[in-house]
Amino acid sequence: MKLIRFGEIGKEKPGVLIGDKRYDVSSIVTDFNERFFEEKGLEKLQKALESNPALPEVDANVRLGSPVARPSKIICIGLNYVDHCKETGAPIPTEPIIFFKSTTSLCGPADDVVIPKNSVKTDWEVELAFVVGKKASYVEEAEALDYVAGYALLNDYSEREFQIERGGQWAKGKGCDTFAPLGPFLATKDEVKDVDNLSMWLSVNGKKFQDSNTLNLVFKIPYLVHYLSQFMTLLPGDIISTGTPPGVGLGIKPDPVYLKAGDVVELGIEGLGTSKQTAVAYKK
Amino acid sequence: MKLIRFGEIGKEKPGVLIGDKRYDVSSIVTDFNERFFEEKGLEKLQKALESNPALPEVDANVRLGSPVARPSKIICIGLNYVDHCKETGAPIPTEPIIFFKSTTSLCGPADDVVIPKNSVKTDWEVELAFVVGKKASYVEEAEALDYVAGYALLNDYSEREFQIERGGQWAKGKGCDTFAPLGPFLATKDEVKDVDNLSMWLSVNGKKFQDSNTLNLVFKIPYLVHYLSQFMTLLPGDIISTGTPPGVGLGIKPDPVYLKAGDVVELGIEGLGTSKQTAVAYKK
Repeated sequence: MKLIRFGEIGKEKPGVLIGDKRYDVSSIVTDFNERFFEEKGLEKLQKALESNPALPEVDANVRLGSPVARPSKIICIGLNYVDHCKETGAPIPTEPIIFFKSTTSLCGPADDVVIPKNSVKTDWEVELAFVVGKKASYVEEAEALDYVAGYALLNDYSEREFQIERGGQWAKGKGCDTFAPLGPFLATKDEVKDVDNLSMWLSVNGKKFQDSNTLNLVFKIPYLVHYLSQFMTLLPGDIISTGTPPGVGLGIKPDPVYLKAGDVVELGIEGLGTSKQTAVAYKK
Repeated sequence: MKLIRFGEIGKEKPGVLIGDKRYDVSSIVTDFNERFFEEKGLEKLQKALESNPALPEVDANVRLGSPVARPSKIICIGLNYVDHCKETGAPIPTEPIIFFKSTTSLCGPADDVVIPKNSVKTDWEVELAFVVGKKASYVEEAEALDYVAGYALLNDYSEREFQIERGGQWAKGKGCDTFAPLGPFLATKDEVKDVDNLSMWLSVNGKKFQDSNTLNLVFKIPYLVHYLSQFMTLLPGDIISTGTPPGVGLGIKPDPVYLKAGDVVELGIEGLGTSKQTAVAYKK
């Protein structure tokens, strides 16, 4: 299945994508949230769809929200692409580097990305994210995929001055509002043949900046589930983003490139669709 | 008012503390969660209590949970006590250092603190926390207290090896399950005469390790609300913890002191009550 959420911000309804058509499943499930995943909602929805119920079609122009509702956490992995490490000259990490994005940063795949007030270094990061399917604490790597509900495209927007030059941890530059567009859809595991071999790319104003493949991931999803679950309990619906390949604005030589109002960011991962955000200035 | 939540883990009901007696207010409000604060629940509850309704008394032996339900985020401030900076020889930060605790770490004030599997450096931190009362984005310092619902005692448990020696950011050592006992109660602002002059202390097995006063805070609450709201939207019910004074286990000379199973940690802040946790080993 390919899950979507559609409608106005804060009032999204659950739906599914079948071929290129969108269908409203709000008569079957309430939302794609913690409770949905916890109560085996994926299996129930699958079963319900098998009986071919009459579902209202959703117009292609209706806004898409994040394909999952606001989770308990968004965890991201830093410096997790071999080619990215090589590019920056950083050693390949011996353990995953982890940080949180504020969950208030979550938004839809075509929502504008708002350049924060006083920001001059808003940057992009195409990433493969996965969503947790059931409560995970001290999970073995061999069982880890049982705890994954599916995969989605994420843009891990990052304000580099806030992240790096304002003292201490990365939290300040990662969680600004609209800094986590997710989707267009959440693909359940069966939809993706080989998650470890998906091409991925990102362009700004039509110029390609990122172009890699999940083959280059240092720590793959089963290890990440195992590893993270040693430090905290992962809850159903939690979003984990696996890191970005080379080509972020910060790394451009000789001068870094950052977003300005009007710039158009497009990105995609093979099998997980594409998304597109327009940068806008903050206004109250 | 002094808000409490009582009952089994995951099934807590809202209550109030009047004198040393606890009363069940679940007939008036559903829970002390995001929606409660967002929909002016504090004012409504205050008004309801003024009419002296007959409220069931809650037995003093019933477990207390966190006085607020799981929020969208728990943000903590690092190195925010003048005396702590002096002790460690660190310069006083020019900007607040911020990090997240996983919200799954939130628990009740007398719950056992679980030493994580493979942990050898579980440490304590007595802290003054505040709870956000309404949605805050780009808030001016002069108006910031309007966005605060109240204050509570928090123990910001920290696994120092996970935090410092496992690569990258602090997230690994801060968000383990049971690492954020909050309460006993949330005191609304009117209950606390001068939040900038509250004595605070923490002892382990009866020996006092931390003994300070909120006078020593580098960045005070109005500035923190203003500052944080530049980087992300704070939501009603969010918990912000303002940092810890000297005397954490990591700082003990000549050798750091860490918790072992059976240790009893007690802590308190003037006007915000006391809490007590017993350290236990992780067992599945």
